[in-house]
Formats: sequence, C-alpha cells, structure tokens
Amino acid sequence: MQSVDIAVLGLGTVGQGVVKIIQNNAGKWRHKCGASIQIKKALVRSINKKREVELPEGAVTANWQEIVSDPGIKVVVELMGGIEPAKTYILEALHQGKTIVTANKDLLAEHGQELFEAAKEAGTDIYFEASVGGGIPIINPLKQSLIANNIEQVMGIINGTTNFILTRMAQEGATFSEALRQAQELGYAEADPAADVGGFDAARKIAILASLAFHTRIRFQDVYVEGITGITPADLDYAKKLGYTVKLLGIAREEDNEVEVRVHPALIPQSHPLANVNDSFNAVFVRGDAVGDAMFFGRGAGQMPTGSSVVGDIVEAARNIRLNSTGRVNCTCYEHKKIKEIGAVQAKYYLRLHVLDRPGVLASIAGIFGNHGVSLATVQQKDFEEGFAELVVITHKVRERNLQDALKIIKEMSITQEIASLIRVEGS
Amino acid sequence: MQSVDIAVLGLGTVGQGVVKIIQNNAGKWRHKCGASIQIKKALVRSINKKREVELPEGAVTANWQEIVSDPGIKVVVELMGGIEPAKTYILEALHQGKTIVTANKDLLAEHGQELFEAAKEAGTDIYFEASVGGGIPIINPLKQSLIANNIEQVMGIINGTTNFILTRMAQEGATFSEALRQAQELGYAEADPAADVGGFDAARKIAILASLAFHTRIRFQDVYVEGITGITPADLDYAKKLGYTVKLLGIAREEDNEVEVRVHPALIPQSHPLANVNDSFNAVFVRGDAVGDAMFFGRGAGQMPTGSSVVGDIVEAARNIRLNSTGRVNCTCYEHKKIKEIGAVQAKYYLRLHVLDRPGVLASIAGIFGNHGVSLATVQQKDFEEGFAELVVITHKVRERNLQDALKIIKEMSITQEIASLIRVEGS
Repeated sequence: MQSVDIAVLGLGTVGQGVVKIIQNNAGKWRHKCGASIQIKKALVRSINKKREVELPEGAVTANWQEIVSDPGIKVVVELMGGIEPAKTYILEALHQGKTIVTANKDLLAEHGQELFEAAKEAGTDIYFEASVGGGIPIINPLKQSLIANNIEQVMGIINGTTNFILTRMAQEGATFSEALRQAQELGYAEADPAADVGGFDAARKIAILASLAFHTRIRFQDVYVEGITGITPADLDYAKKLGYTVKLLGIAREEDNEVEVRVHPALIPQSHPLANVNDSFNAVFVRGDAVGDAMFFGRGAGQMPTGSSVVGDIVEAARNIRLNSTGRVNCTCYEHKKIKEIGAVQAKYYLRLHVLDRPGVLASIAGIFGNHGVSLATVQQKDFEEGFAELVVITHKVRERNLQDALKIIKEMSITQEIASLIRVEGS
Repeated sequence: MQSVDIAVLGLGTVGQGVVKIIQNNAGKWRHKCGASIQIKKALVRSINKKREVELPEGAVTANWQEIVSDPGIKVVVELMGGIEPAKTYILEALHQGKTIVTANKDLLAEHGQELFEAAKEAGTDIYFEASVGGGIPIINPLKQSLIANNIEQVMGIINGTTNFILTRMAQEGATFSEALRQAQELGYAEADPAADVGGFDAARKIAILASLAFHTRIRFQDVYVEGITGITPADLDYAKKLGYTVKLLGIAREEDNEVEVRVHPALIPQSHPLANVNDSFNAVFVRGDAVGDAMFFGRGAGQMPTGSSVVGDIVEAARNIRLNSTGRVNCTCYEHKKIKEIGAVQAKYYLRLHVLDRPGVLASIAGIFGNHGVSLATVQQKDFEEGFAELVVITHKVRERNLQDALKIIKEMSITQEIASLIRVEGS
C-alpha cells in the first residue's frame, strides 16, 4: 500500500488539530483514500515550544527549505496565515510539483490568481475548503456538487465573532462594547478585534466564495465593507419588532453579467434560514438556477472544525496523487465580469432619523425621498428627546446612489438632528 | 478538446431536467470539467411520446442494448427508478466499464453492495448524490469534505411530502388527511402516498446515509420505520406548547460500534436547526467528532434540484474519465457493525394517554413507569371526555424495551382507556 508524505507549515491551533486528526485515525486512511498519510515534516518558528501533539524525532523543523526541497513530500499544508512568508513558501512548493492544502483566506483573497496560475503551470492543485466557513463544506460543494448551476447569489454569515456579538446584543440587550468584551473573555474575539468587527475577515471570505460562484476573480479590495461597530441596541430592538434579525452578511450577487460583492450588517426576515444561525455558528446560503435555495451550516472556526476541512482536503489530495490525477481543477475564474460599485447596488434600507417634532416634518422628508425615487414601505414615528422625534423608515428597493443623494439633502436640513442608522435589508 | 459521451436511462421529470441543464450550458462544460458533455443516447419506453426536450435524430431509443454495447458511451445516467430493470442495466453497463450516475435510492438501499462490488471489479465508479436530499450536496460532503470525521450521528428531514404535510398541520391546525389532500393537489404527494407517509422513502435514504457515515452496509430492511399517519392535531398542539416541533426524521447513530437506524416522527426542540426546516424543504444534520454540528439544507426533490445533483455527478465522472482516474472511491463500507434493534435504542418519549379521571390514577401509572426504570420529565393532566383525563408525559432517556414493557402493563389496566400517542423526542 502506498503512503503519501505531507508537511505542515505552522503548528498553531489548527496545525495541531490537523496532526491530532491524522494521528488519531492512523489506521483508517488506507480505507479512506487508498494510501496511508504520514506527516514527514512540520515547519515552526520555535522548535522547542511545548505543544499538544508529538511528532517523530527530527520531523519538526524551523527551516522551510528542508520541506520544499524534499521530493518525498507530496502535499504541503499551509496553516501559517498572512501573506508573507506563506506566499513565498507556497509558490516554491508549487514549482516543486507539490499539491497545496491551505486555510489562508488573506492570501487567496489577495493573490489567488498568481497562486492558481502557478498550480496550473506545475500541474498540481490548491485545495482550500478551510479558508471559508471553517468546518462547513462549502468550497467543494460549489466546485463539484453544484457545478451544474449558474449561481445567482451567495449570502453568508461567515464570521463567527461578529455573529456571537450580534446574538448577545439581540438576546440580552447588550451594547456592542459589552458583547465584544464577552466575546473576548470567551476567546471568540481577539484582543485586537478590528479584522472581525470591521468586516474585513468576512470580506476576504466572500471574495473567495464570489470568485468560485461567478467564475471571475474577485479580490479583497473589490469588496465593499462595513462592520458592526455602529449597530446599537435600539436598532436591534426596532428590527425585532418589524420582524427582522440583524446579521453581518457577506453578499455576492450576479445580474446581467455584473457582480456585486459586499459585507455589511443587514436586516433579514426572521423566517429566512440565516436568521436562526446564532452564536458563533456560520452558514452560507446559495441560490442557483437549478438547485434553487440551499444552505450550509456549521462551525466557522476552531481547531477541530477547521482541522476537519483541512484533513478532508489532504485525503482528496492524497487520493489524486495515488491516482496520478493531480491538476484536476484549474483556476475556476475563466470569465471577466464587471464589479458593480456600491452606488449602483439596489437594496431595501432601514433608516433611523432624529428630526424636529413638529407638523410638516415627515411630509418634507417624504418629499425629498420621493424626488429621488425612494419609495417608503413603512414609517414609524416615536417621541425621542425633548422636541425631537425618532423616525424609523424601511424603503422599497432602490438604487443606493439615489438613497444617498436624498440623505445628503435631508442631513443638511434644519429639521434634521441626525441620521442615526442606515442598515440594508436583505433576504426578502 | 475531449468530449465525454453519456446516455440517460429514462426521460421522465428528472431525466428531462438533466437534458435541459446539459443543453442550456453547452459551452461551459469544457471550463467546468475540461471536456464537453454530449448526450449520445436516451432510453425511453415510448419513443414518440411528447417531451419538453429535444435530442438529436436517432438519440432516443427503446433498446437498452444499444446503449450498454456502445463503447463510445462512457457514462450511464440511470433515472428510471425502481429495482428492475434498472439493476440489470446498471450491472451490464458496469461490466462494460462504464461509470454510473444514479438517483435510484430503492436500488442502492437494497442492492448497494452488489452494485459497488461490480463497480470495483470493473474499475469504475457509481455516483449517487441525487439519491438523497435532491439538490442538497450531502453524499459528496460525507465522502469527501467530512471524511476526516468519525461521524456520530446523521439526522435528517429527508422526505419533502411528509414535511409539507406536517408543516400544514402545524401551521393551519389541519388534520393529516386534509394536509395530505392539499399536498396531492399541489403535486407534492402522489395518488398513492404510502411510500412517503409510511416513512419508506425516508428509510431508503437514511440507509444510504448511514452506510456512508458509518462505513458499514445498512439496507432498507435494516431500518426501523414508522410513518406519520398517526400524528394528530392534538399532538402538534401539545408539542408546540412544550417547546417542540414534530418532524419525520431519519436517524442514524453509532455508539460503541453499534449502529441504530430508524425513521419515525419525532419531537425536536424549536431551537434545533432542523425545527425551522418547513414545507417541502429537506435538511440533513450531521455530527462528527471533528466538525461538530453541521447541517445541509435545500430542495429535496423536483426536476431541477435533482437535476443539479445528477449533472454535478456527471461533470465529476467526465473529469475523472478525462484524467484516467476512474475507480476513485470504492465501496466505503469496509467495516461490519452490529445493527441495534429498536428495543435496545435509548430515547426520550412523548406519550399521550387517556385514563380514568379519579384520585390515585396518576400514582398507579407513575409507579409502573418507575418499576420499569422509566423516569418522567414532565407530566400534564387535562380533562378529556366525561370521566376521563388526558395525560401528557415526556420521559427522561430510557431504553425503548423498558418503556414498551411498562406500556404493555398500563394498557391492560382497567384505569386506562387508551394510549393515544407515542412519539420519540430527539435533538435535545
């Protein structure tokens, strides 16, 4: 029986999870992929650091050249994260004909094209199930089971930290900072939470999903991004009363050969399958012309869930090496589609405004919306501070540019104290 | 560029959907699998029947030998359903070295072993994503992305007809027969609904999922089956008040190297991800030792969703034919695990009993439960008909045999009018 030797770059949380899974199931790989899987090398920064897992004498190294220059190593599993030196190591491994398994969303979302071209040239493959949605199978289903579809839309809760925070805020009435502190105490948020709460982590993931779904290269910098730091308990409260839940969504949609890709908080109807995805769970909702609506739900992060996806890819890589069938799926971005700017996107909007509490104010504001083609679906008015009222508006579908033009004028009017919130409404 | 020629056995609803998808995306297959896909033949019973799709002159035939004996046809797509003649055709096609794509759950759940052995001998593959969950990718994720897991449990809503009926009953207070009639009018249920409402369709599907998940052959006849014909509005009403939803579930679980496989209605907590899967949607919930909880949701039937899965498999088959890497995944049932009989299964139970309304009755019944090790979690008593009370009980976890022994005694007692309902409680 054949054995496929692999190397792991990085023995952090996920790297150690991968080692555990491979070692704990040692006898099973020959059944599962026709070959045993051996971890020949692991690249670390500090060799003597204490770890949860043990590798054979001499397997742990701080010298990456030992790995890429070893012709016996067929699969390189990159779990270091970040752009460099991961990119250099992966490119060199590809040049050496090795197959890559990676969880590196930053790298794929910024330099995907270069990596896939290098893999094509070398006749090998890059597997990246773990880069989006942790343990949830979503990359392989898009590449394989759903390949018959023209995908119309991918919409997902793809950041567990922000979903935990929004769930706490919604269920306990906590403020953003209180919920963030709770997430940090429980290890769901990092000390510097900017990448998560700012929406940038989700933006990298939706760029990867959109590239796969629409067969055109979408990079991190192509994604319109808003985070959740501006979401208040008042907004969650109104949303609930209006029959919605607030989630941070990654959204990618194709219409008339143009693609829109964005990350922002959104109100979604409580009956939408994504509305009940709570705490640190992730889910990706896909709409295709044949399959209709489908959703993939699970743990979006963590040692073992992410390890599950990484090892799934390793098994598939080992199978294809055994069968001499690497170079299976080249870069799937074989088209060039235009990316819509946010001003051209059409959506419904939830707005919360503070205005003078006197007759005629609502009429003035409605008039300005009307002049810009913004039609209002629901309006609620409530007493606010002395002399002011709180207006909560949900619009019908409108082009964002029109809405923003109207808001620019409303903001400058003497009757307006502030535009307190603007949140898009999706999934209805 | 290479072309992969295929044949479709059966041009019914799904068969015509497959033709549509392949024809509508004609220019795309070379990008999607490196080869164009041509439908060379289609087997039908009546050649001149009017159909939604058109195939080239001479492609439609009533003679199956024309297909299996044609060395140019590399993939045979079986969409006839039923055991014979599908089984004969598939076995012969395998002997001729062809790859099989099938949606035939009946055949796989009863004769899977024979088919997979024939495929192994021929060095080809059988793809069957469409056999469970229609358009939902669940077979390939279990075979690939989740392969690193030791699966602990698979639990699914895998019959759309019964889910539609139970949703109507729950949301409108309809009786079973009223909801069934509605399902028949809308085309969700067949004139003879026995396979659906009796749970047999779901039993075939859970047998297939369990075989994959636990790597041991589970056949249709190994599955314990109860349908939904006995579910009443009263039960749905109590379930709702107790915080549960009633769903027809396929459940497969492994513990201590023993597998339990069953289909029956069950109460699941309203907070469970499966509880919000309504109407004709399907969903499969999987628990693995690495991935934790994951769920796959979508359309469980229909021309285009099922066609989506079938064509996804055809593309993968064509890719592997192009790469000379057929014979990829042999039968995944490489272990032999014992199947638990229903009496040995442990569960919680919801019971509705009609008993004499007089002092001491509850004590007698609780005593008998106690003697059999059945401990009660909640008990509600309500006036029923003149002189009788309705007892609604939810038990703690108990071995089914113990519960049934207790019920046998309770049933014979003079204080008991009837045991109106027994429904298992899952997912908590």
